Amino acid sequence: MRIALLGCGVVGTEIVRLLRANAGDLAARVGEPLELVGIAVRRPERVRDLDIDSALFTADAAGLVARDDVDLVIEVVGGIEPARDWLLAALRAGKPVVTANKALLASDGAALHDAAAAAGTDLYYEAAVGGAIPLIRPLRESLAGDRVRRVLGIVNGTTNFVLTRMDETGASFTEALAEAGALGYAEADPSADIDGYDAAAKAAIMAQLAFHTRVTIDDVYRVGIGDVTAADIAGAREMGCTVKALAVAERSADTDGISVRVHPAMIPRAHPLAGVREAFNAVFVEAEAAGQLMFYGQGAGGAPTASAVLGDVVAVARNRIAGRRGPGESSYAALPVLPMGRTVTKYHVNLDVTDKTGVLATVAGAFARHDVSIRSVRQDGRGDDASLVLVTHAAPDAALSATVEELRGLAGVRAVSGVMRVEGGEP
Amino acid sequence: MRIALLGCGVVGTEIVRLLRANAGDLAARVGEPLELVGIAVRRPERVRDLDIDSALFTADAAGLVARDDVDLVIEVVGGIEPARDWLLAALRAGKPVVTANKALLASDGAALHDAAAAAGTDLYYEAAVGGAIPLIRPLRESLAGDRVRRVLGIVNGTTNFVLTRMDETGASFTEALAEAGALGYAEADPSADIDGYDAAAKAAIMAQLAFHTRVTIDDVYRVGIGDVTAADIAGAREMGCTVKALAVAERSADTDGISVRVHPAMIPRAHPLAGVREAFNAVFVEAEAAGQLMFYGQGAGGAPTASAVLGDVVAVARNRIAGRRGPGESSYAALPVLPMGRTVTKYHVNLDVTDKTGVLATVAGAFARHDVSIRSVRQDGRGDDASLVLVTHAAPDAALSATVEELRGLAGVRAVSGVMRVEGGEP
Repeated sequence: MRIALLGCGVVGTEIVRLLRANAGDLAARVGEPLELVGIAVRRPERVRDLDIDSALFTADAAGLVARDDVDLVIEVVGGIEPARDWLLAALRAGKPVVTANKALLASDGAALHDAAAAAGTDLYYEAAVGGAIPLIRPLRESLAGDRVRRVLGIVNGTTNFVLTRMDETGASFTEALAEAGALGYAEADPSADIDGYDAAAKAAIMAQLAFHTRVTIDDVYRVGIGDVTAADIAGAREMGCTVKALAVAERSADTDGISVRVHPAMIPRAHPLAGVREAFNAVFVEAEAAGQLMFYGQGAGGAPTASAVLGDVVAVARNRIAGRRGPGESSYAALPVLPMGRTVTKYHVNLDVTDKTGVLATVAGAFARHDVSIRSVRQDGRGDDASLVLVTHAAPDAALSATVEELRGLAGVRAVSGVMRVEGGEP
Repeated sequence: MRIALLGCGVVGTEIVRLLRANAGDLAARVGEPLELVGIAVRRPERVRDLDIDSALFTADAAGLVARDDVDLVIEVVGGIEPARDWLLAALRAGKPVVTANKALLASDGAALHDAAAAAGTDLYYEAAVGGAIPLIRPLRESLAGDRVRRVLGIVNGTTNFVLTRMDETGASFTEALAEAGALGYAEADPSADIDGYDAAAKAAIMAQLAFHTRVTIDDVYRVGIGDVTAADIAGAREMGCTVKALAVAERSADTDGISVRVHPAMIPRAHPLAGVREAFNAVFVEAEAAGQLMFYGQGAGGAPTASAVLGDVVAVARNRIAGRRGPGESSYAALPVLPMGRTVTKYHVNLDVTDKTGVLATVAGAFARHDVSIRSVRQDGRGDDASLVLVTHAAPDAALSATVEELRGLAGVRAVSGVMRVEGGEP
């Protein structure tokens, strides 16, 4: 089984190391040796430190993919182009592909899946979500006899590290992000993580598998964690909650649509996801028959990602030797993705109000006008001012956000000092 | 795809319900409808309440398995015989088998695997360990490119419920077991759970998958939780630990053997397994590249177990339609299973001693004579008596237990009031 590797950064280097260190085990598990026949990198002349035969390196990825002596292609370059062209060429030539490329899968996975199906070959991508945590295989296979209701994931290590620090040390967002950068948990430009793009791509991939429906990153509602304040974290704490950046894929209870979104949310401290600290990832799945499941581990890093890639390599190599194909894309359900306004959520709202008779009645009236039911309210007086903390029952997001808009202009309301969605409770 | 179901108790009934409720989804996922053509039960005339066509029921399981119109066999009867004969007959006839039968797999799985391989058909058993928690597939496939170091599992809901209650309420073992029985978490005869037989079967199955080595329940060292006392729990708490009934499958660091065992152990409260409460199950996996992973969920019950069975049914039905076979048994490594005496563990030892000069030196001498290094010691005086709490560094279990034997006869030692292994820390 002759393998081409596209990309040789942190993950690629670890793949090369594992292919060598575990060569005997891998050969026994696959049924024949795995041989690395070429590695495509942008600047082969720059690759020096690695203890790898320099003759393997090439700058011509397309040529490497097309070589007759390549049976299987691993891609860890990332990004849409040129990875997309290389992988389409591999699949069209009937060569199975193992990729960690979440951005490509979330933007144009359909083209890859179609090419794999047309050629009767495999497209595996366990490493695209949650590093080494098995998620794709459980969603695609283990839960194939069940109906998934909801997937709640902490799928970005950078944002979870930042929010964990804010929660545990009282740090501000800026301080916590600086610490994440210093410790190597945040990139020099952290915007793909902080603004939720990374998590949105993973949410699209998980939603597709959970609901047998094509979902792209453009279908995903997205709010980053840049506006989360120390006051939000403190407010969550008072509610017995913590703030997490969640990727949510959910089947609507009353319509036959799904909701896919990424945003900060309060979850109860007793929820299993609340204990997922620092850069760890975890995905919590609720299915009709299986009940509640959680998958936990290191969501990133060279070695964990390489482990996931090689698990897939063993599977597709076995398939290729046996002349068969693993499970392909499943998108028969084709459920509509609901706009965020129609998605049912709950809000936690913190108001600064004047401490005068009638303010609560005014505020409650705004909720009632939008048909939003209040679950709990707490008022704390502070001289002339008071703070009012309200938690709603579930309501369409459009009604909730319209309520908040109305509150901003209400006499007696000095400021809406905090608004956050609440997840992880009973529907 | 025509299915025979052997057994129609709590799990079987739920399988029938899901086959009907999810019929459209299952057909779309498999590629053709799943049709239940027969259900074998011991006394068909007793099955009344179920909303199932009575013509499906038969007492002749062997005859049902042999029928020409049966393509796939599900077994949820449990026990060794006659299930073994039925499943061997099915596999020999080339009919794929999905089973939840941990006892059979752990005692004579080799015969089933050999029959499946000889006939080129599938033997799937995700439901045998951890109910709906995907464990078999991640160990068998997702980690196939990695080297597993250790598997630590809470795989028995009854014992975890009992130990959770002892920890959280200070209840005695007897009180906690009575509560488990009253709430339906313990069977009328709870000995298979309390004495560790159920967990030992699951440990054997997990060890086989993790280490590519045939392991039977007879290879598993086993201690139940019947002797765990409230004092043990309190002692664990003082150490920042909790007591869990663990299934451990571990690769020895210095020899090329594996250790497979089931026993109560102290684990640090900060360990992810420590937070697994009541009847929930979780399995913690440490692999060289993947790092630490945890899988969590409901480990038993009709619906979760049926979910796991149906996930397997979808997979083997797809395979059968495509004329292929999923991954089979992997036992190439054939590592030796070490006897418990050669397994390296750590002990927590609690002694009642006379409070006289020289007692600590005498006790420390006993440890030294067996070449066991002491990690920490704490002495609390109480009038003429004192308690001495020692935690060891890792040492061969035989040396540790010989040390404890010597302590029992030592002048100045009134009693060895508690001995428990410690897991979940650094090696």
